[in-house]
Amino acid sequence: MKANVIIKLKSAVHDPQGETIGHALAGLEYDQVTSVRQGKIFELTLDVSSKEEAASMAREIAERVLSNPVLEVFEVEVED
Amino acid sequence: MKANVIIKLKSAVHDPQGETIGHALAGLEYDQVTSVRQGKIFELTLDVSSKEEAASMAREIAERVLSNPVLEVFEVEVED
Repeated sequence: MKANVIIKLKSAVHDPQGETIGHALAGLEYDQVTSVRQGKIFELTLDVSSKEEAASMAREIAERVLSNPVLEVFEVEVED
Repeated sequence: MKANVIIKLKSAVHDPQGETIGHALAGLEYDQVTSVRQGKIFELTLDVSSKEEAASMAREIAERVLSNPVLEVFEVEVED
């Protein structure tokens, strides 16, 4: 079973890499792009029997290992 | 309007960072995790009037700027 853990910076946290990409897009005449924020995604393949178990394990791993709760927020999506 | 561009390595491409995280998880007794693949996500805020326009612009930006078509695949999700 596959679970995606999506990690984004909290909105109050400065994201210089995203800003740089935003400036580059403005230079390429994508003026409608008002903000770019970069994050990470981890695709976990889990050998468990139910979607609930996959979601609960992915959330635990995201909290304990993958994310930094001071700076980041995460969400978990389990694929069918 | 917000559009997420999710970029993952093609499945044939080696992902050492994901593998390292996988080994670390095995060491933490998450033995059910059989694979970890890392990717990137870009959250674009777009000043456009329709979801269709947002999706089309995000796809164009993903193709031209954000992804490397040799190594990566991307998908676009527009938020309501």
